[in-house]
Amino acid sequence: MSDKAVVLVSGGLDSSTVLALALQQGYRCYTLSFDYGQRHRSELEAAMRVSELMKVQEHKIVRLDLGTIGGSALTDTTIDVPEQETAGIPVTYVPARNTVFLSIALGWAEVLEADTIFLGVNAVDYSGYPDCRPEYISSFEAMANLATRAGVEGSKLSIQAPLIDMTKGEIISAGAALGVDYSQTVSCYQASLEGLACGKCDSCRLRIEGFNQAGIPDPTRYKNSA
Amino acid sequence: MSDKAVVLVSGGLDSSTVLALALQQGYRCYTLSFDYGQRHRSELEAAMRVSELMKVQEHKIVRLDLGTIGGSALTDTTIDVPEQETAGIPVTYVPARNTVFLSIALGWAEVLEADTIFLGVNAVDYSGYPDCRPEYISSFEAMANLATRAGVEGSKLSIQAPLIDMTKGEIISAGAALGVDYSQTVSCYQASLEGLACGKCDSCRLRIEGFNQAGIPDPTRYKNSA
Repeated sequence: MSDKAVVLVSGGLDSSTVLALALQQGYRCYTLSFDYGQRHRSELEAAMRVSELMKVQEHKIVRLDLGTIGGSALTDTTIDVPEQETAGIPVTYVPARNTVFLSIALGWAEVLEADTIFLGVNAVDYSGYPDCRPEYISSFEAMANLATRAGVEGSKLSIQAPLIDMTKGEIISAGAALGVDYSQTVSCYQASLEGLACGKCDSCRLRIEGFNQAGIPDPTRYKNSA
Repeated sequence: MSDKAVVLVSGGLDSSTVLALALQQGYRCYTLSFDYGQRHRSELEAAMRVSELMKVQEHKIVRLDLGTIGGSALTDTTIDVPEQETAGIPVTYVPARNTVFLSIALGWAEVLEADTIFLGVNAVDYSGYPDCRPEYISSFEAMANLATRAGVEGSKLSIQAPLIDMTKGEIISAGAALGVDYSQTVSCYQASLEGLACGKCDSCRLRIEGFNQAGIPDPTRYKNSA
């Protein structure tokens, strides 16, 4: 078994916590981010910062033009990011995003001969996103084991989603205990280039609530308080 | 059920035949190609030409920098394309390529509300590629139905790989019967910018043998005969 792991990092709170958990478990971590035409490009700066702070083996950014297929407020500038809670699958859902990201992580894992991929999906807070459910993750893992050289040659690839059943408050408590510096992470769907958060979108609202639940002061830099 | 289908087209012989089969079955076809850092960029020209000739609804090219993760002779210029048959999984295998391509097709299918994705994988000729096996395709389909809005809302997404059990000769016979103009397609792993084939790589050798098997004159333009 390899001690290498590919960790998907967005620069946000969840994936930074996952990275800390993977490192704590003794994995040599290779972090992967995507420049996919997202509005919130300060994410990528945060992903680089967090990867460097946590001393990963290597951080790669793959360019991928998901805006070409459209369909989401996060990649299509003609769709507004909602500033109130919405019912059903939100417009910020990017079609098949986790599947695309995991697939590319799978390719890199194959090149690195890593047996483990970590990602920060969470079924509690993102219950409206189909690709954040536990049955989806198991199904991707089964497919991945048929898709690759490793599958043919008999080793086993594992997809780890350690946050899947945790609340935002529990995630923040776990990360804080491992020393994650949340002031370096960006969650906002419409953060400024400098990484200042709006404090209003779904992602900001969940994050604010999470710090409240955890009873930890929120170190996020907001636009209004700037 | 929707009559829209997303069809993965590479500009090669197999995917052009799949497109002809999908059109014959009455689907409105949306073709998808990838600019993924491949050596054989004349593929993309061929994919555009074939999509236009076959009058598809729309053709999209998604940019995706697979060269970033390396690991294949098709995306890494430091690895030579072999000109003789090789044992095991060939170096031209691109890690997780079909998984990545199908995932992006899945995203576009979700945006278009299409229930069907066609791809031209073939288990007979590409038995060395893990992601060309029937059990892989079924497993991707199962995962896809958990990954998307459609899966949550109860419709069923189908992944069609009609060539999976056909020999190259049978594929060419089927396509020729449907009027596919194979002179417009490019299969060579190291074709020139004008689409001239080397006649030596695995892909060229399979194609030449296929025309022999089908008893159809090979319309391919080769570098040597130019």
